[in-house]
Amino acid sequence: MTAVKKSRTKDKKTQPIILITNDDSITAPGIRYLVEAVKDLGRIVVVAPDKPQSGMGHAITIGHPLRLQKSHIMDGVEAWTCSGTPVDCVKLAVDKVLHRKPDICLSGINHGANHSINVIYSGTMSAAIEASIENIPSVGFSLMDYSLEADFAGAKKYARMIVEKMLSKKADKHLCLNVNIPKGEEKLIKGVKVCKQAYAKYEEDFEERKDPSGKKYFWLTGEFLNLEKSKDTDVWALQHNYVSIVPVQYDLTNYMLKKKIEKDYTW
Amino acid sequence: MTAVKKSRTKDKKTQPIILITNDDSITAPGIRYLVEAVKDLGRIVVVAPDKPQSGMGHAITIGHPLRLQKSHIMDGVEAWTCSGTPVDCVKLAVDKVLHRKPDICLSGINHGANHSINVIYSGTMSAAIEASIENIPSVGFSLMDYSLEADFAGAKKYARMIVEKMLSKKADKHLCLNVNIPKGEEKLIKGVKVCKQAYAKYEEDFEERKDPSGKKYFWLTGEFLNLEKSKDTDVWALQHNYVSIVPVQYDLTNYMLKKKIEKDYTW
Repeated sequence: MTAVKKSRTKDKKTQPIILITNDDSITAPGIRYLVEAVKDLGRIVVVAPDKPQSGMGHAITIGHPLRLQKSHIMDGVEAWTCSGTPVDCVKLAVDKVLHRKPDICLSGINHGANHSINVIYSGTMSAAIEASIENIPSVGFSLMDYSLEADFAGAKKYARMIVEKMLSKKADKHLCLNVNIPKGEEKLIKGVKVCKQAYAKYEEDFEERKDPSGKKYFWLTGEFLNLEKSKDTDVWALQHNYVSIVPVQYDLTNYMLKKKIEKDYTW
Repeated sequence: MTAVKKSRTKDKKTQPIILITNDDSITAPGIRYLVEAVKDLGRIVVVAPDKPQSGMGHAITIGHPLRLQKSHIMDGVEAWTCSGTPVDCVKLAVDKVLHRKPDICLSGINHGANHSINVIYSGTMSAAIEASIENIPSVGFSLMDYSLEADFAGAKKYARMIVEKMLSKKADKHLCLNVNIPKGEEKLIKGVKVCKQAYAKYEEDFEERKDPSGKKYFWLTGEFLNLEKSKDTDVWALQHNYVSIVPVQYDLTNYMLKKKIEKDYTW
């Protein structure tokens, strides 16, 4: 018995720690599917926002204190809610929940796409980027389906496959993947493409309304414009029913323009 | 009289439109100094947050409506407040205030540094980045002094110089500059350096406190760690009393890791 116990303890100690977060909040179906997909690959710890945080980008909470609450919403999985943003979740998880860096950080599965320029607005991806800033390999997963009743079978399958690959080789500590999964049945997905971020943007169109007292207010709407037609982009891959994988960086220096402005201007 | 009137009208029409925003809110001294610095270089339109939005990164407001309010806080300058984030300000300014793209978008002057990794958390810089996504050349200015009574003379001088340069040549439509100005007297500033973003990060340390009912809460603190000692970084430039200029991009693809994972993994 003692020997068995010891070996179990050792297993528990040597298994990777998988931190899971998202931006749709701990109650979203997507994060449960992600937990299910990778549950047996390591020790799972969930630290997720206590309310929806879509579009929060890389926001952090600096003017207000944060709350961290144990949650029993996920059977058999250590879970916490945080009152802040997805990036706050990662910071608090490392500093106050795990008291160490996890072996990998997963974010999602987001309800809706985070390809092309969406990566910059996405709380899901910003959590993953924050992890990579902290030398934690990370992946953000997004399914191109906003419905709460969406079919997550394909997303789960590819999430597991990608996490298994990252854990099997020691992933680069700054490796941060933006993974988008096409909408629809799993069997229709053709495979995986490593891509670059498509050059795309939104043509903004705020909807103007009046409140009951006659005062104007605006809702953000906007039309998505893909401005890049080449085959090596995430938008192309998704349109052709591939899972897109874009490695993401946090060095925002534009080296090309750096050279250009050194040459073109006298400072 | 008619001829003079016509020529004046023409001047007004041909002068560049300069959109100004920030993340410290319309009441912050920094945005007033920025307006003062460039007031005669074009038609100034201010659209700034109605409350502090520091650390908001590239957050956008998607779950709530936005308000836009005419403000009379700045004498002789068209000014609006927006209830959202700095990025919302830029989007609303283009779509609902200007009804066109401005010739340049300026953000700041931020009370506090936005060098190195801070660029990713900064609402000031995210507003500038949003402009560049929309093909508007942009600059975010930050002074390395958090005090509301800080000496902005150096910041104003260099802000004006940089905006003049950008307006005199037709700047690349995606040119987005992250400009940080050292703290202290203007005469001590040695000049300008075009730099790359230093590889730096924060070692998080949340301060744990208890509220009056005994429940825990956390304040984000954290120690800044510069992990790069080379002379071509913004941190180096600022430490040596130069104004740092980093051209910033929104293509987050990590092309180096893209090649590496295409080679290292079978997908």
